[in-house]
Amino acid sequence: MSEETENIQFELTDDLINQVEHLIKSKSDKELHTLLDDFHYADIAEILDELNLEQAVYIIKLIDSETTADILKELDEDNREKVLQKLSAKEIAEEIEELDTDDAADIIAELPEDRQEEVISKIEDEEHKEEIKELLAYDEDTAGGLMAKELVKVYDTWTVAGCLRRIRGQAEEVTRVHSVYVVNKQGKLVGRLSLKDLIVAKNEQKIADIYISNVDYVDVNEDVEEVAKIMSKYDLEAIPVVDENQTLLGRITIDDIVDVLKEEADKDYQLAAGITQDVDSDDSILELTRARLPWLFLGLVGGIGAFLIMEGFHNVFEKYAVLFFFTPLIAAMAGNVGVQSSAIIVQGLANDDVKGSVNSRLIKEMLLAALNGVILALFLFLFVWITKGSATTALAISVSLVVVIIVAGLIGTFVPLFLNKRGIDPAIATGPFITTSNDIFGILIYFWIAKMILGI
Amino acid sequence: MSEETENIQFELTDDLINQVEHLIKSKSDKELHTLLDDFHYADIAEILDELNLEQAVYIIKLIDSETTADILKELDEDNREKVLQKLSAKEIAEEIEELDTDDAADIIAELPEDRQEEVISKIEDEEHKEEIKELLAYDEDTAGGLMAKELVKVYDTWTVAGCLRRIRGQAEEVTRVHSVYVVNKQGKLVGRLSLKDLIVAKNEQKIADIYISNVDYVDVNEDVEEVAKIMSKYDLEAIPVVDENQTLLGRITIDDIVDVLKEEADKDYQLAAGITQDVDSDDSILELTRARLPWLFLGLVGGIGAFLIMEGFHNVFEKYAVLFFFTPLIAAMAGNVGVQSSAIIVQGLANDDVKGSVNSRLIKEMLLAALNGVILALFLFLFVWITKGSATTALAISVSLVVVIIVAGLIGTFVPLFLNKRGIDPAIATGPFITTSNDIFGILIYFWIAKMILGI
Repeated sequence: MSEETENIQFELTDDLINQVEHLIKSKSDKELHTLLDDFHYADIAEILDELNLEQAVYIIKLIDSETTADILKELDEDNREKVLQKLSAKEIAEEIEELDTDDAADIIAELPEDRQEEVISKIEDEEHKEEIKELLAYDEDTAGGLMAKELVKVYDTWTVAGCLRRIRGQAEEVTRVHSVYVVNKQGKLVGRLSLKDLIVAKNEQKIADIYISNVDYVDVNEDVEEVAKIMSKYDLEAIPVVDENQTLLGRITIDDIVDVLKEEADKDYQLAAGITQDVDSDDSILELTRARLPWLFLGLVGGIGAFLIMEGFHNVFEKYAVLFFFTPLIAAMAGNVGVQSSAIIVQGLANDDVKGSVNSRLIKEMLLAALNGVILALFLFLFVWITKGSATTALAISVSLVVVIIVAGLIGTFVPLFLNKRGIDPAIATGPFITTSNDIFGILIYFWIAKMILGI
Repeated sequence: MSEETENIQFELTDDLINQVEHLIKSKSDKELHTLLDDFHYADIAEILDELNLEQAVYIIKLIDSETTADILKELDEDNREKVLQKLSAKEIAEEIEELDTDDAADIIAELPEDRQEEVISKIEDEEHKEEIKELLAYDEDTAGGLMAKELVKVYDTWTVAGCLRRIRGQAEEVTRVHSVYVVNKQGKLVGRLSLKDLIVAKNEQKIADIYISNVDYVDVNEDVEEVAKIMSKYDLEAIPVVDENQTLLGRITIDDIVDVLKEEADKDYQLAAGITQDVDSDDSILELTRARLPWLFLGLVGGIGAFLIMEGFHNVFEKYAVLFFFTPLIAAMAGNVGVQSSAIIVQGLANDDVKGSVNSRLIKEMLLAALNGVILALFLFLFVWITKGSATTALAISVSLVVVIIVAGLIGTFVPLFLNKRGIDPAIATGPFITTSNDIFGILIYFWIAKMILGI
């Protein structure tokens, strides 16, 4: 970390944690204030995530709700849940008053149902309360669940000067003004303006004459992943959300999309590694076991399947023991090829660049697998031939390898495409699922073809 | 896709491609203009990515450079390279004039060296030319390589009214104004203002009295991944870039960070799946083979290693054939556990939440693996005991499984931590690398322990 950026490069050290713990223990509120006031709320949240519950609640109650609201927003979900349990409905409502509607609704949605109503009833700002209630009604995976009600809205009949005057009023409650949305008398979204456009325009101009009518927007029921795709494709920093009559309901900002993209990537990565989503390395051993054991169990069942197949071929063993020694190789190759193929498809589906028909995709994967398979099989053929001295055995194993690789590639390609068609997240097809099924198919095909070639 | 959003939900259909191809063939320039003028440049880029080179170049030359510059920016890198080869240095320079400095520098950096100079010399706007040359000097993985020179800068001695007047001038060449950066006489960054602050402030106020001095910034040599972390942690939509004297050099916007995050996630995902980065499902079979074959070859070598180990134990076969039938299960479990452990560590490292010492991390993973291992081994014990009728064999296999799982977990945890310490991307440790090494270690440990318990 370079010296020049020291004032923003916050570093969470053991020393700092100890210092905070010490100050809490000695109830040195003034010193705590002095220390924490210099930090960004996201940094304070990181500190709180390291403290125990009592200490965290102590700090939340110490600092004023303008900052603590933001801290709460940034806390680990598990820690937030515990902290909120220690606060009264009234105290939570006070924090909620300080937050934008989208963050407020997200936090309330995490509370148990009966507490939700209690907290909402304690919110004093009537408009804020109604807006939060509206947002809570949307599914969290839709544009409605992600949007905030805070936005700057002007009517197309206003003048630039009048507009600037009114914006001053609206803008004070909007943290960041990305765009000014232009609506007609019926509240229907008709266009947008940037603050820059307003500043550059002349005072007496009518909004109707200067607004840009080519405005991007999303439907309130649109899937968040689709919203993320649209915003990143068109480089949008905010997008208005409308209902089926094109009435302006809210706006989504790019920082929320950054979070969606990160969650999405983390989830896919974990699924590919055989971890049920939503754990991180600091979770408890029990939580991690719950996320990992089911996939390992799947692997165990697959392994037992492989055992049964091999046992079924056990009478071949005396003459061709060498076949059995290559089963880990066959299983590994089938697994690796399957994971590669499925990963490419899953990623392509996520980025919307899987074009063309399923058939042409399968033919391409078959050619690709055949090419890889033949190269690898040639190498294996030479190895077996030289070390074992039997060209027939070498041929049997190598030909099997090629077929196994082709089948593994086809399964890896077909399964995620199939799941996607059925509306199931194709990412679950990567990782243990594909390796396990390919292990079994691979070993079965391998013995079957080898037996055929060796004439046993 | 819902009807309400039809005007922004562009869909790339075969019909559309055919229509464009037909219009190009018949040189119907007017119809092409009418058709394409309605589309966003990102959509036109998608169409061009589907056309052949000649057709793409035809359209690039047809549309005016204001739009084509943006289209070029959005094209697939491979296609852009080919299209640019078909344009003269003068034509490229004209496109470059229309782009922001960061995009301009990125495109020039992709050209062969001799062409770079030729194109730069043809840029007419002297300031633009100098700024692009400055940006080309920075490493593409640093803040300097990502930043744009376009920003709105005001001096702390100005008044709000004077400031608004001057901003009108500067803002016209800045696509989107995120923040107004405040500098002192020496050009040193001292604070920031939002346009909203300016609009809300009174005309006669001095900038020095209203600016926010608590401004986040990054050093020009900061790593882009670090910049992405800072911007997403602090929810920033733009961040100023400074040199070692804190002189304001440029700014980075969140849309560039979205791209960095996506590339990062794609790269890690592909590495975990055993695919060398930078291929997508529409690349040629040869490119895909190049990206996939090395990892498969690694798997092949690992499989041969497993073969040699098993062959070394072949004299055990007569009595304990069953041991050999379980090798795919052992290899699969070792691989799965290794991938899970390494994925959690790699993701934790990427998100900066791997805290505490390596030792405590290894102890935790050992306990976790032991817990998972014992549960799975119990199941396996019962299966072998019941089907084979030998408790000793069942015990030997089950105990081995527990040890194999623990070792696999430790390797999966240690390797990425070790690579990360050495400054190597830990993501290469996931996928085939971990599965292959765990296959070999797993099978070796398995036979060794089983032999010990069975007393052979």
